[in-house]
Amino acid sequence: MRNENDNGDDEKAVAVLGLGAMGTALAEAFLAAGRPTTVWNRTPAKAQALAARGAVAPPTLTDAVRASRLVVVCLLDHASVHEALDPVADELAGRVLVNLTNGTPSQARELASWAAGHGAELLDGGIMAVPPMIGTPAAFVLYSGPQGAFDAHRGALDALGESVYVGSDHGQAALRDLALLSGMYGMYMGVMQAFALTRGEVPATEFAPMLRRWLTGMGVLVDSTAAQLDSGDYVTGVVSNLAMQTAAYPNFLAVAQEQGVRPDFIAPLYPLMQRRVADGFGHEDVTGVIDLLRIDENQKEN
Amino acid sequence: MRNENDNGDDEKAVAVLGLGAMGTALAEAFLAAGRPTTVWNRTPAKAQALAARGAVAPPTLTDAVRASRLVVVCLLDHASVHEALDPVADELAGRVLVNLTNGTPSQARELASWAAGHGAELLDGGIMAVPPMIGTPAAFVLYSGPQGAFDAHRGALDALGESVYVGSDHGQAALRDLALLSGMYGMYMGVMQAFALTRGEVPATEFAPMLRRWLTGMGVLVDSTAAQLDSGDYVTGVVSNLAMQTAAYPNFLAVAQEQGVRPDFIAPLYPLMQRRVADGFGHEDVTGVIDLLRIDENQKEN
Repeated sequence: MRNENDNGDDEKAVAVLGLGAMGTALAEAFLAAGRPTTVWNRTPAKAQALAARGAVAPPTLTDAVRASRLVVVCLLDHASVHEALDPVADELAGRVLVNLTNGTPSQARELASWAAGHGAELLDGGIMAVPPMIGTPAAFVLYSGPQGAFDAHRGALDALGESVYVGSDHGQAALRDLALLSGMYGMYMGVMQAFALTRGEVPATEFAPMLRRWLTGMGVLVDSTAAQLDSGDYVTGVVSNLAMQTAAYPNFLAVAQEQGVRPDFIAPLYPLMQRRVADGFGHEDVTGVIDLLRIDENQKEN
Repeated sequence: MRNENDNGDDEKAVAVLGLGAMGTALAEAFLAAGRPTTVWNRTPAKAQALAARGAVAPPTLTDAVRASRLVVVCLLDHASVHEALDPVADELAGRVLVNLTNGTPSQARELASWAAGHGAELLDGGIMAVPPMIGTPAAFVLYSGPQGAFDAHRGALDALGESVYVGSDHGQAALRDLALLSGMYGMYMGVMQAFALTRGEVPATEFAPMLRRWLTGMGVLVDSTAAQLDSGDYVTGVVSNLAMQTAAYPNFLAVAQEQGVRPDFIAPLYPLMQRRVADGFGHEDVTGVIDLLRIDENQKEN
């Protein structure tokens, strides 16, 4: 039998570097799943709070990295990851780094090369949850990188939520993570615009159930748009064509003006709709606006 | 017993003016509910198609208006409504107009005054559905105007979907309608950004279930934001504060650049988040950005 404190030889052990709200939630989920969990944070108070609940909180980052073959990193940004890991690069050989820090695909690929240069494998991940959801079935976490490393550590990672492997290219998890979050912020801009327009006339908590019902129902747009994008046929399935929608769109700008609300969040779609109509696509769905968002295709069409 | 063709004395009769995709769906729903339905369109082909399915299609708009106490109008825009109705204004006395044309609150109030000047009552409505949903439980229609007129005609209007009365101020249905649609277009801009980012790397139909699951789950933001707005407390319930979210936001602009996608749809939120942080609200939720959308409050804070 191995000793659980023997320099990371315990296959069940996990180290968590970075104890913000998310890192703390990750460490708590590992502890709840019965994993020997070592924690580290630049400022030690948060590590000590977790130590009181069963985590090991060694004095140095070197000790923390040495405690486990699986090292989960959840810091503020890509620069913070290098700031923390560069000084302990020589300790990483043979370990699997799981980077759950929010970042871009190219940052993930850079970190993978850097880790490989120090003998470590990288799984780059994207957490699709807010901290209170970690460890519940509502959370899912995207991973990309070597399939073998994912398979070997999936048992541990499943403690955080549903583990979704999206490919060996290290950038794939970050790409999906940022695309999903971009979608969420778009939805949230719409929600903020809706509340700003109705504010002072309808209590927000009275309007909220109607707004949520409407947005949930309109989620069908995700599927219909996807089918049109993959087929390249933007006409089949049209229920209100681009010309009609473009004709009605000035009402969204007008109601903003009537209600004294800035149109910033709703305005950017209109010129792209108008351009598609001018280009002869008024009979199609709005889907073709996505073509105009791609800078290459946008220029190609001019 | 009254004669069903006797100048609108049949209490069950309905007239539908305007037979675009939506007007046609409305007329079909009234026919399906067994209502004697008179239809009119500026160009007569669409009326004749409905006549073949049981509607009455009289030769003139005057005849169509005279056929029913309840006159439903669904045209392109507010100007089209006046173009159609102004010449038959003298026929409107004693009737209830139901205007389901997309328009703003002030347009609804203007039409109500105009109708009152001709002895008619107005119910202004907002259809929360696409045409194929009309007549199904998935559709709901907002109405505002005199409660008595709504109560008297609710039996007929329920044929279209769930009827939701939102107050005697004629502008209230249009306000909610445009707020809900603004919310939908915001969500759709997020969806388009997500598909543009992943295009060429993930088939859209493969990515769609994940995107829809994520947006549906994040619908909780509607309720949490509403509770914060009504209480004025933007701190309780924060799971990731504004400072943290603002620190991560450049990643959405960076991934757009990496993927060759225009940032137009995602960019407008960032400067407002930065301003709230600069104003000392970094510990709060993002909700305070809604304060900055209100032009009055925005100027007040400067």
